Amino acid sequence: MNAPHNAPGSAAAQDPTFSRLHNATFLQACLRRATDHTPMWMMRQAGRFLPEYRATRAKAGSFMGLATNRDYATEVTLQPLDRYPLDAAILFSDILTVPDAMGLGLSFAQGEGPRFASPVRDEAAVAKLAVPDMAKLQYVFDAVSSIRTALTQDGKGRVPLIGFSGSPWTLACYMVEGAGSDDYRLVKTMLYSRPDLMHRILAINADSVAAYLNAQIDAGAQAVMVFDSWGGVLADGAFQDFSLAYTARVLAQLKRTGPLGETIPRIVFTKGGGLWLQEMAALDCDVLGLDWTVNLARARALVGGVENGPGKALQGNLDPNVLFAQPAQIAAEAAKVLDSFGTPYQGKGTGPTHIFNLGHGISQHTSPEHVAALVEAVHAHSRALRA
Amino acid sequence: MNAPHNAPGSAAAQDPTFSRLHNATFLQACLRRATDHTPMWMMRQAGRFLPEYRATRAKAGSFMGLATNRDYATEVTLQPLDRYPLDAAILFSDILTVPDAMGLGLSFAQGEGPRFASPVRDEAAVAKLAVPDMAKLQYVFDAVSSIRTALTQDGKGRVPLIGFSGSPWTLACYMVEGAGSDDYRLVKTMLYSRPDLMHRILAINADSVAAYLNAQIDAGAQAVMVFDSWGGVLADGAFQDFSLAYTARVLAQLKRTGPLGETIPRIVFTKGGGLWLQEMAALDCDVLGLDWTVNLARARALVGGVENGPGKALQGNLDPNVLFAQPAQIAAEAAKVLDSFGTPYQGKGTGPTHIFNLGHGISQHTSPEHVAALVEAVHAHSRALRA
Repeated sequence: MNAPHNAPGSAAAQDPTFSRLHNATFLQACLRRATDHTPMWMMRQAGRFLPEYRATRAKAGSFMGLATNRDYATEVTLQPLDRYPLDAAILFSDILTVPDAMGLGLSFAQGEGPRFASPVRDEAAVAKLAVPDMAKLQYVFDAVSSIRTALTQDGKGRVPLIGFSGSPWTLACYMVEGAGSDDYRLVKTMLYSRPDLMHRILAINADSVAAYLNAQIDAGAQAVMVFDSWGGVLADGAFQDFSLAYTARVLAQLKRTGPLGETIPRIVFTKGGGLWLQEMAALDCDVLGLDWTVNLARARALVGGVENGPGKALQGNLDPNVLFAQPAQIAAEAAKVLDSFGTPYQGKGTGPTHIFNLGHGISQHTSPEHVAALVEAVHAHSRALRA
Repeated sequence: MNAPHNAPGSAAAQDPTFSRLHNATFLQACLRRATDHTPMWMMRQAGRFLPEYRATRAKAGSFMGLATNRDYATEVTLQPLDRYPLDAAILFSDILTVPDAMGLGLSFAQGEGPRFASPVRDEAAVAKLAVPDMAKLQYVFDAVSSIRTALTQDGKGRVPLIGFSGSPWTLACYMVEGAGSDDYRLVKTMLYSRPDLMHRILAINADSVAAYLNAQIDAGAQAVMVFDSWGGVLADGAFQDFSLAYTARVLAQLKRTGPLGETIPRIVFTKGGGLWLQEMAALDCDVLGLDWTVNLARARALVGGVENGPGKALQGNLDPNVLFAQPAQIAAEAAKVLDSFGTPYQGKGTGPTHIFNLGHGISQHTSPEHVAALVEAVHAHSRALRA
């Protein structure tokens, strides 16, 4: 599928980053190398829109019952790959596992979002926070290893496995609010009135996230992604000081290679972060994830780089609501996204590349057949773009 | 307060736009003229954070009881002006009055947001839509006239009165969803699967909004503002076709002058629209409102214009959550916003100007004393900037 870049004797064929994969297109695109089609995966691809996911969740009894059980987590991670020719797998887990391990008491009430029994709202609660013992998150690392094994066919991985974490700021939002929020009033009140407490939370979160992602890499994650889902709610200035700086602190502590010496690409996705793209270009990561508000041509010009120069691969950015239209319309919108980025780099070095994704997680109300139409359209149109 | 620009014999003193106002700084800044301080007002300044508002609302019995009664609407519009030296008044009303007049049946359930009894979700419902008879909105125009009268002291207005409407797209979101939404699934499903229906709704909305704002101008509104509260949820490309194009259609139909020949400045605010500033610069309006994610220095460079050249005045953009900090911190954050814009134009022609505002509506949980600290800080610091 990814010849000639993985052809025997080529540099890529000998690089442990790519050599043990049947389909390495995702990692190649992360590292700004040419591929014969634009790789794609979807945020929340192992999720409620799939009837087989809902069946496994029913067996598990609850969301956390699913996420904390290695076998269930493996099963649901592979479900979308068995249905669609996606180019990457992503660990099934929740972004709030880290604060849960800090002792905040995560739960998911029926029909509602996550909730912490002990939110962090005052100086005493902040003083008690510490980087959690990673042994409390062993169930996550066990799931990573189990998924890697399950992805192996004929001695090679089908596709790479992405590990992930919430960003320090996004975790702090939930830790202070105690649940989802419309206005982020509590966390922003702390930010503006007690910036010292907020910085302390964020420093602990950053060090925790770094340890967490490093342990995922040790367990077998082949790329890691930081989800800054709520970075976009911050004011200009506050974003740089309270989100971006701590994402940078995570990246500075991450391992650059996995157990076999393979390069581990790092992806940073800030929902609503399009205005700060130029500042994010300075992050020590390989890929920037973009939501649907960003014009990919403009993003490529700003941060995509040039041949054999620095730059970021770009990941995104179809509005998940497009999937509620009919297949022909879905294909047309997917083509618009691919055409907006333009023809990706096709040379033998490095250059601007694109990883197709949604601009946010797929909706639980999506028809699985519509997803099939999307994947087919992205692969077909992105091959045509290169022809 | 606004001498020397309003000094007897000056052009401004003879211009009916300014001559009948004690404090014309807001209109001067809208039209990119110099002022001796940066004018400020707050979105939702007549609102629940004020105890006197809550008292009037209790008398009125309901939100719509308040909005549809000329005397109550006048009373609450003036309340923030009696407490704070704000530089503009804004009509107390709701953005959903227009679809209500179309027959969709607006209601506000206790503790919830607005809801339409008859949302517009299929071809038959769209076919029935039409520009409403403006007589059904006479209560709004009566409120405008009543507020103008109430603002008059010694034969002149204290400050100018802003009229407003929701944008065609923002109204369509509520009309299709039937209420607020987290994901805009229904309205985006229509947009992507039946763009013909969506364009028809938006064309009717645009013509309705134009008629509505023109009637507000006839009744005495001295500036008009289009709130595109949900423009920022659209994908790049869809924003231009489904929001911006219809805001432009509204602007093209608006009266340029009021009953006395005064110029009526037009303000367009798109929450989450920072990425499209350059495209919004082509709108036929005077002022662009910005939320807190936008860097004002960058926005000024992009669209603020130069001396005696074209350009937009900029309005914004303090995060309303800053008001939950202490007064010294509020003053520091307000100064950051003012300093980010930099010294406004101080010459005798036109140039880059700034109107201070929040980046979105003030929260009901805000302390009235903190607002006093903000207004004082903005006026003092903006005078110091010019010194």
